Amino acid sequence: MAGQEGTSTKPGHPRVGPRRQGDLFDAACPTRHLLDRVGSKWTVMVVLLLAEADEVRFSVLRRGMPGVSQKMLSQTLRHLEHDGLVVRRVDAVASPPAVYYALTPLGSTLVPTLAELKRWAEEHMGEVEASSAGAAALD
Amino acid sequence: MAGQEGTSTKPGHPRVGPRRQGDLFDAACPTRHLLDRVGSKWTVMVVLLLAEADEVRFSVLRRGMPGVSQKMLSQTLRHLEHDGLVVRRVDAVASPPAVYYALTPLGSTLVPTLAELKRWAEEHMGEVEASSAGAAALD
Repeated sequence: MAGQEGTSTKPGHPRVGPRRQGDLFDAACPTRHLLDRVGSKWTVMVVLLLAEADEVRFSVLRRGMPGVSQKMLSQTLRHLEHDGLVVRRVDAVASPPAVYYALTPLGSTLVPTLAELKRWAEEHMGEVEASSAGAAALD
Repeated sequence: MAGQEGTSTKPGHPRVGPRRQGDLFDAACPTRHLLDRVGSKWTVMVVLLLAEADEVRFSVLRRGMPGVSQKMLSQTLRHLEHDGLVVRRVDAVASPPAVYYALTPLGSTLVPTLAELKRWAEEHMGEVEASSAGAAALD
């Protein structure tokens, strides 16, 4: 990719030794679980909303994602935080305390791919719907 | 959104006409359900395996996806077929009858995006794992 130095593609944690590379087609590899997490609609929405600002309050995220429950949004953010894709900051001085979320550098690497996935789904949704309607008519 | 005609976002069964454009952030839009389907690990694997050949037998797909159950693979293929991304062909002359699957042209449009999603997950899996391990240590 443009802008990358000649030093292999290894970002971060340089002392960790040889970087582990996943293999989606290996049943024992955690890559497939990671894929299920990052490919979910709520993850896509959170990551793309966070990509638009330095940090975003929980309440603002929730308003930006119509249909998400507080519980589902909390859980999505917890998973993203656990995976090192998002950081959480509590402003305890605010009253009531405000909670902010931001993408980590690792989380930022996911933005172009998820933006493309969103674009694909939005662009082809009509064709998929037409196909489903045809299939239903034949059932 | 660009490309949308003045006709509201109500999902219907368009007699083709102007192409409908989805909106992931619209709670009523089927785009988000579509996204959940195409972003799942089994969908990614099936689409990428099918991208490598003109058509692939069920049994070959299953061998190529270690860990998938027959039921889960059938269900994944059925969803893909319903969405118009995959076609199924039965060779009844073979004994026992052979079932083949292939990407449709619509399904083929999904390949680059899912290949990129797979690449991201495989490349960054090590960092995500390291982050999760750190998070667990702090818990």
